[in-house]
Amino acid sequence: MELGVGGSSPPSCTKKMSKEKKSKPSKELPLGFVDRQEKELLTRDFIISNIKEVMIKYGFQYLETPSFEYTDSIGKFLPDKERPDQGVFSFKDEKNWLSLRYDLTAPLARYVAKNYLELPKPFKRYQLGTVWRNEKPGPGRYREFLQFDADYVGTKNLQADAELCILISEILEKCGLTKKDYTVKISSRKFTEELFEQLKIQSSEQKLITLRALDKVDRLGWPEVKKILGKGRQDKSGDFTKGANLTEQQIGSLEEKIKKTTPTNEDILEIIKIFQAYNFTNFRFDPSVIRGLEYYTGPIFEVNLNFEVKNAKNKVIQFGSIGGGGRYDNLINNFGNLDCPATGISIGIDRLVYALMQKKEFNIKSTKPVVICVFDKEKIKEYIEIQKTLRDLNISTEIYPGAGNLKKQMQYANKIGSPAVILYGDNEIKSGKVTLRDLKSGKEISIEVQSLANEIKKII
Amino acid sequence: MELGVGGSSPPSCTKKMSKEKKSKPSKELPLGFVDRQEKELLTRDFIISNIKEVMIKYGFQYLETPSFEYTDSIGKFLPDKERPDQGVFSFKDEKNWLSLRYDLTAPLARYVAKNYLELPKPFKRYQLGTVWRNEKPGPGRYREFLQFDADYVGTKNLQADAELCILISEILEKCGLTKKDYTVKISSRKFTEELFEQLKIQSSEQKLITLRALDKVDRLGWPEVKKILGKGRQDKSGDFTKGANLTEQQIGSLEEKIKKTTPTNEDILEIIKIFQAYNFTNFRFDPSVIRGLEYYTGPIFEVNLNFEVKNAKNKVIQFGSIGGGGRYDNLINNFGNLDCPATGISIGIDRLVYALMQKKEFNIKSTKPVVICVFDKEKIKEYIEIQKTLRDLNISTEIYPGAGNLKKQMQYANKIGSPAVILYGDNEIKSGKVTLRDLKSGKEISIEVQSLANEIKKII
Repeated sequence: MELGVGGSSPPSCTKKMSKEKKSKPSKELPLGFVDRQEKELLTRDFIISNIKEVMIKYGFQYLETPSFEYTDSIGKFLPDKERPDQGVFSFKDEKNWLSLRYDLTAPLARYVAKNYLELPKPFKRYQLGTVWRNEKPGPGRYREFLQFDADYVGTKNLQADAELCILISEILEKCGLTKKDYTVKISSRKFTEELFEQLKIQSSEQKLITLRALDKVDRLGWPEVKKILGKGRQDKSGDFTKGANLTEQQIGSLEEKIKKTTPTNEDILEIIKIFQAYNFTNFRFDPSVIRGLEYYTGPIFEVNLNFEVKNAKNKVIQFGSIGGGGRYDNLINNFGNLDCPATGISIGIDRLVYALMQKKEFNIKSTKPVVICVFDKEKIKEYIEIQKTLRDLNISTEIYPGAGNLKKQMQYANKIGSPAVILYGDNEIKSGKVTLRDLKSGKEISIEVQSLANEIKKII
Repeated sequence: MELGVGGSSPPSCTKKMSKEKKSKPSKELPLGFVDRQEKELLTRDFIISNIKEVMIKYGFQYLETPSFEYTDSIGKFLPDKERPDQGVFSFKDEKNWLSLRYDLTAPLARYVAKNYLELPKPFKRYQLGTVWRNEKPGPGRYREFLQFDADYVGTKNLQADAELCILISEILEKCGLTKKDYTVKISSRKFTEELFEQLKIQSSEQKLITLRALDKVDRLGWPEVKKILGKGRQDKSGDFTKGANLTEQQIGSLEEKIKKTTPTNEDILEIIKIFQAYNFTNFRFDPSVIRGLEYYTGPIFEVNLNFEVKNAKNKVIQFGSIGGGGRYDNLINNFGNLDCPATGISIGIDRLVYALMQKKEFNIKSTKPVVICVFDKEKIKEYIEIQKTLRDLNISTEIYPGAGNLKKQMQYANKIGSPAVILYGDNEIKSGKVTLRDLKSGKEISIEVQSLANEIKKII
């Protein structure tokens, strides 16, 4: 199909409306997207500030690549590529296809290739940014995520891989998690490569389907995964996932070897040695860790939470990982002859926010303003004076911003969760004092403006 | 043209490559997008943290809507709509058109409509977020921006409009600007409406073209704008902007009235009165302020910088505004019968970052790690010990993360801008002391590990 310039642009509003007879536009969000409220955003800010502190301490450079890349620059390394073009959001520009990034690693590879000569080697950078996946939306499945990534580029030194696991632990503990709350699982793509060799699985399609199937053990369980390893699997919605067509014997051996937990690979053994030098013990070798993305070549990591997380329906769910990563020694080489081994780790920030907000011990404070009630618009200068006194002392304050009587103003103050209102009517002006009403206790006191801040600090 | 499901998806990588015989993917970014470096990002973080402090103090709620909305939900209020479908990035989903937001106001209107019953009225919210414009890219013209917005929803009270101008001033001054560095310009859509009436400009198309033309006075100057007010204008690239077809007499009166600077509108006069109550003087009535977006109905604001800003070629440029906004009393009503007047203001954060970094007095500090050199991989435990001592004291530190001899390690430390390296070789181990080399002065000292942190603090 040939698309002209701008051929894939949307119908204009008016056109659409003429058909529906001037219907109102939708108030809803597209599936897979959400509005985020204050507590969630403050929790996110708290996590991000911890990340930044740790990143500075560990000597990572702060970088930001844009949302869009040329489609062919970021390639197609997504899992679930039964519909490969649907994994990303893409547009036809005047000449080229552009895509919204689906992770922060592929854009980093492009950045490194572009700036290869100028960059220090190794190059350590971190990035915080939204990524998009144009996947089939479903309950709890989003199409937009905030991610944090830290990567070491240009080094084969496995201390980099080890330190990624350690820094992610430090971030989680700074956020208030204890060692019991999380586990870093490690494995290696080399482990699965050896398995494939032992089991004589040779076709790259079979390998890919097998890896993706194993990656789903946590979510689907072995019985369902074995269907994908065999002839294929139909999910509840009726969608069919093509199988790897392994023999029953191959599937059996695979399950057995994946379930064993003694590491044999040299890279894993070396990383464990470095962990010991760091006194880092909060990890486990787990060969069922696969990681979906195709570009990994060596050690892979996954960070799992061990405390209970409930879904929107208050049901405890299999929460899965909040982050992970691994070594991708060949990705940057795609851009030219650049021998540039690399390793990196991500945190899914939205997922961590979601889980953290459910921890009993966690409580983020959101500040609500004290409301100065308006009795007489002509007295605005007096209200502004009180407001200035409080704001100068960094007390969140506002003059009632609407137009309504005192009852309406009190309703407003309660609705926004204000800790207190300030009343400065005729009586108060006469006495030279203001009335401060604590909205939790209902108690009122009459005090001078200079003493207001101290009284307010007691109740917020 | 009929598009099937996924019909507008990009060609797969392999297909494209087969034509070009396995050419490497592009290392370049699409036009209008940029990679952002540490100093710029730290400046941005500094601005954002100031914004958040002011927002809390002023009692605004923190909200975040997603990047995507249904195309018809956010409407088409962009200026330069000669090619209306090209102003936004849009995708066909399985059923609907989705667009990346082009501002934060239209999504706020959708949010308010969706949550109308639950929201306090007035509702004060702020948001920080990226917006996208699919415009013709050119030098210094980006297609992705970070924006800050603060809005009062559900109030006609002009104190809201006044306070928006005051809070934006407080943010700028917190960022280090003086009163001389910026001016808040105010005007009102009612002023231009009256003008249209006086000059008998009645067709809505003529009004729209006229407003957009006037909005460009700063950038193009009166002679070029007058072409658009008349028969139309061809720009340097050959693109033609349709004219408003006003008569010469209309154009003449328009210019004259726009150039006068005494406010006559009631709304402007009331806002000025409130400014006076706040002792806020850093504003100017300027009827040439138009603001491009179509949805404004009343007072409009624009914030201009008054200090010199240079472009990438070191040439002083007409920098224009770093923010603005206005009252939009009818926008939310588009979603149904919601009488919900509102007013808001934005800062273009990237533009403010760009300008701020050029201020002589402004200097943001970026921290680089002290590098512990690796003499012997077997001594890794000792290096880790030193690293831990420093990191525990919040000193940015790293063990050289690559694989190379001492010369290479020194080159690396210099390349990343490290303040110092730590040498702990055989001699040092024997003496029980480490060598600290200041990379700026070249001076070396031999000290005990416990004293390292204090010495390092002297040189960073």
